[in-house]
Amino acid sequence: MKSVSDYTYMVEESIAGLGYGAATPTNLYLPIEYGLQKGGKRIRPVLTLMASEAFGTTAQKALIPATGIEMFHNFTLLHDDVMDRSDLRRGRPTVHKKWDENTAILSGDTMLTLATQMVSTVPDVVLRRVLDTFNRMAIAVYEGQCLDMDFEQMDVVSAESYLDMIGKKTGALLGAAAAIGAIIAEASEKDCSLMEQYGYMLGLAFQIQDDWLDMFGDPATFGKPIGGDVLNRKKTFLTVSVMERGGAEAQALHDAMNISDGELRIKTVRKIYEQAGIPDLCRENIEFYSHKALRAVRSTGMSEEGQRSFEKLVEKLIDRRR
Amino acid sequence: MKSVSDYTYMVEESIAGLGYGAATPTNLYLPIEYGLQKGGKRIRPVLTLMASEAFGTTAQKALIPATGIEMFHNFTLLHDDVMDRSDLRRGRPTVHKKWDENTAILSGDTMLTLATQMVSTVPDVVLRRVLDTFNRMAIAVYEGQCLDMDFEQMDVVSAESYLDMIGKKTGALLGAAAAIGAIIAEASEKDCSLMEQYGYMLGLAFQIQDDWLDMFGDPATFGKPIGGDVLNRKKTFLTVSVMERGGAEAQALHDAMNISDGELRIKTVRKIYEQAGIPDLCRENIEFYSHKALRAVRSTGMSEEGQRSFEKLVEKLIDRRR
Repeated sequence: MKSVSDYTYMVEESIAGLGYGAATPTNLYLPIEYGLQKGGKRIRPVLTLMASEAFGTTAQKALIPATGIEMFHNFTLLHDDVMDRSDLRRGRPTVHKKWDENTAILSGDTMLTLATQMVSTVPDVVLRRVLDTFNRMAIAVYEGQCLDMDFEQMDVVSAESYLDMIGKKTGALLGAAAAIGAIIAEASEKDCSLMEQYGYMLGLAFQIQDDWLDMFGDPATFGKPIGGDVLNRKKTFLTVSVMERGGAEAQALHDAMNISDGELRIKTVRKIYEQAGIPDLCRENIEFYSHKALRAVRSTGMSEEGQRSFEKLVEKLIDRRR
Repeated sequence: MKSVSDYTYMVEESIAGLGYGAATPTNLYLPIEYGLQKGGKRIRPVLTLMASEAFGTTAQKALIPATGIEMFHNFTLLHDDVMDRSDLRRGRPTVHKKWDENTAILSGDTMLTLATQMVSTVPDVVLRRVLDTFNRMAIAVYEGQCLDMDFEQMDVVSAESYLDMIGKKTGALLGAAAAIGAIIAEASEKDCSLMEQYGYMLGLAFQIQDDWLDMFGDPATFGKPIGGDVLNRKKTFLTVSVMERGGAEAQALHDAMNISDGELRIKTVRKIYEQAGIPDLCRENIEFYSHKALRAVRSTGMSEEGQRSFEKLVEKLIDRRR
């Protein structure tokens, strides 16, 4: 097994070699190259490469499908940024800002088909399994994005519904990324399904941590301004956990969210979270889903070395010291 | 072989049985059901069913993939309507008007993946060929849409470039629809490629006819107001044919397009087309590409009965009496 940074390097090289910068029509392919440029963590394709080696094939054999997984991820970012009217992504203008909305829609569509082509470059013997896993995942991601937009229009969302939504929007793709690596290595149905669980649970832990970091993270390392979700009045694991309790705490949060001064709103909401014990609740849930991920990978038939690699990835992504 | 109306009926029944009206999240699936409702001619899936029977299998075996082809077509309509800011389609509000833009983007994405799933419901022995044909077609359609938008920003477009664009935007999908039917029937590579040519050439003839009808069609049967392309200053086979000649005719058309009164603009442009012999040029080109389509289908190894069916389809779609 290689290190995460070795796998990441392979993915970066693969993306750099795609050559869309020279393809025509320019207005279709330049935004695709731009959307794929460095800046992301490449976790999803790394999962695919790791799983393929852990189950006994070479990462090289899974490289184009893994690149397709990253292409799919970046397609969802392009369209999500249009839907969320986001102007910045990884510190750069989003595609619909740098070009326009039509370009983001059409280049995104193209990325989805290119992604499907890339994941289809697998041997015939696994083509249908890979394709079914990929398409099923894509449908889950769209459903998750739809629920996310639906939730923004609702006063109260249960934590259960919220977890279902982030499971579809984030967990499904990490799950499919890991499963597709295992399928390419011709692992058993059971092991592939366990790897899908690993990725799904890791996705849940990761998203809850991301929600927590937005409020309680270290501004020096988080990469985004603290309190962004509160400023945008976004539903997160933190808000839904308070809201579903009802009563005085929920009312206090509701009132705090209506404070017009942004800085004061963040400060007030933070105090409510602390008094309601939300940081502990987050930590417990992050632990819970991280453990589920680890249990899934330990139930597979992969080597000890492989298991250690997937454990290390959880440690890398989930800061369990706090 | 069945009649075109029999095949159309099969497609309508298949679409009616999809059941997206009952699927959740409602905001994702209701727009899909709405987008697929009656009104279109269903030419593309009919081509798939016809080709499958002409090469010796049952239309039933090609029905779900054919429905996927129609799903793909309707996905492109959903996204094109957003990009073109069109408010009406087949006399009804477009999805982004009835719901909103985000819904049209996300439901469109979902339709693309659903379409891919449907065309993948073919036996293993033809899966890769079907999938490759489908994905290659999809890329051509996006490139065609991109060129179409690019052309709107250009003063002069050659007829050759225009034909390349409509070939990608319209011809590629009709071509893939016919080819996929042949592939499902396990026809030879050569015959599948000839069927792709048939559809492609039929698409060119059909689009040139559509451009012609917009100016010279019978208002009673055309279904859209005459002169819509002139009102929207859209590039068509008619405009590019005049423009690429340069000189006084091109200048006159350029000036006429700047007339602010819509009715006068249509009248003036019509006169320029007539004086420049554009109606004859259209007829010649429609004949030329119809003949190419017929020659392709006659070069295949299919039965006389099959050939007659594909000839009849050309006659049905292309009014050759005028």
